[in-house]
Amino acid sequence: MRWCRFQNGDQPSYGIIEGDNVIEVSGIPWGEHSRTSNSQPLESVKLLAPVIPPTFYAAGINFREHVTEMAHARGEEPSFPPAADVGYRANNALTGHGSPIIVPKDATEVFQYEGELVAVIGRQCKNVSEAEALDYVFGYTIGNDVSERTWQRGDRTLWRAKNTDTFKPMGPWIETEGVDPENCEVSISLNGRFVSSYNMSGTIFGVREFISRMSRYLTLVPGDMLWMGTDGAPENMKDGDVCDIAIEGIGTLSNPVQWEK
Amino acid sequence: MRWCRFQNGDQPSYGIIEGDNVIEVSGIPWGEHSRTSNSQPLESVKLLAPVIPPTFYAAGINFREHVTEMAHARGEEPSFPPAADVGYRANNALTGHGSPIIVPKDATEVFQYEGELVAVIGRQCKNVSEAEALDYVFGYTIGNDVSERTWQRGDRTLWRAKNTDTFKPMGPWIETEGVDPENCEVSISLNGRFVSSYNMSGTIFGVREFISRMSRYLTLVPGDMLWMGTDGAPENMKDGDVCDIAIEGIGTLSNPVQWEK
Repeated sequence: MRWCRFQNGDQPSYGIIEGDNVIEVSGIPWGEHSRTSNSQPLESVKLLAPVIPPTFYAAGINFREHVTEMAHARGEEPSFPPAADVGYRANNALTGHGSPIIVPKDATEVFQYEGELVAVIGRQCKNVSEAEALDYVFGYTIGNDVSERTWQRGDRTLWRAKNTDTFKPMGPWIETEGVDPENCEVSISLNGRFVSSYNMSGTIFGVREFISRMSRYLTLVPGDMLWMGTDGAPENMKDGDVCDIAIEGIGTLSNPVQWEK
Repeated sequence: MRWCRFQNGDQPSYGIIEGDNVIEVSGIPWGEHSRTSNSQPLESVKLLAPVIPPTFYAAGINFREHVTEMAHARGEEPSFPPAADVGYRANNALTGHGSPIIVPKDATEVFQYEGELVAVIGRQCKNVSEAEALDYVFGYTIGNDVSERTWQRGDRTLWRAKNTDTFKPMGPWIETEGVDPENCEVSISLNGRFVSSYNMSGTIFGVREFISRMSRYLTLVPGDMLWMGTDGAPENMKDGDVCDIAIEGIGTLSNPVQWEK
């Protein structure tokens, strides 16, 4: 099943996508809910980030080949994270499929996409094993961990490098069935030109390892989400570019880039 | 006016504190709301963290004397942050006045409080000047940025060092009047014994500098909050200790420490 959030008049609503239509649902996807009689063509609705999480978790550096390539470029031996130490992103930055990534005037040209698988939690969990961790996932969606690299290197934290408004496009929807988070292909295109792809089998720590380790210290609740990190070396995005991130079994998240004048 | 959140049967409710009573309020403090006829003695209610923010901002290292002392202890010259680069904490860790700080079995004895002033945003803002920044603050409360220092040094991020469940006590309420965020005294006691105090005049960047700089890149929304960092060298907290943080014009946040057996 595909769950989305969309602009329904002046309110956001959850919806289920069936064929070419969005059926408005009252209530919440991971709790009590019921279908309404409101159905709208998918192509006519403005999709929003499919969830605004209580806590927004992000894996950060999480691919073996990516770590190795970066280390070799610096003439060093790679050093892998010893544990699934999760990081954070911020809700203010979330935006939906089709909405523009708006770049502040003072950003530099080292402005890049990072295509990522996103796991959305469906049930409260604490102290879960790796074997049972995926049972607590409601479904999967796509995130673009947009990053301004000059700020990322120069600032004390990642706050504006990663969390400026609109720097976290997510969507187009949450797919609850048929996604294999440990073996699915992630493909990135710029302006319709394929630029790179990687498989989720290349993670250092997978969704189950993160959820299990996180849940030893903290309670995950429905609607929390975990962005899984990215592989490969991204290209820069320019004003007017359109960045598409496709994940096998989910769909394609597409966002135009719009530099502030 | 003092706003709180409290456990009202099986639901959380906002309330206004008048004298020794909590008046339940329907709606939200920074939007439409109305008083109800439900009044309960303050001493009989369980206070919750006074807000669950859309985004939880934290200043981190933000006091000149603190930076200087730490640098001198390492035999180095102090290096001050050049800009108000904000960081983050996580909502899962929030807990209210009076609730226990629960310490995982595998935590080390270097387990410490950090008493902090917290500013809660009341109105949406983007691109505000330092002169007008404080107009967007709804009120002030108290936070204890509880930290496990071994994890803080060893892990790749601050996730469990700072954000294990119950590591972010906050409250007891939000005070909307009479707090001077640039000149108020913060005092910390352990088991009723005064341990240290500092004044908010010692910040490197104040509330207005943070809000103004943050708002150049991101939209602050009602309920967002900013923890302002701490000064001084904290002591360790042991099983059974009670940590009190008092801020002039607000009140005292008090929480017992309970080590998991």
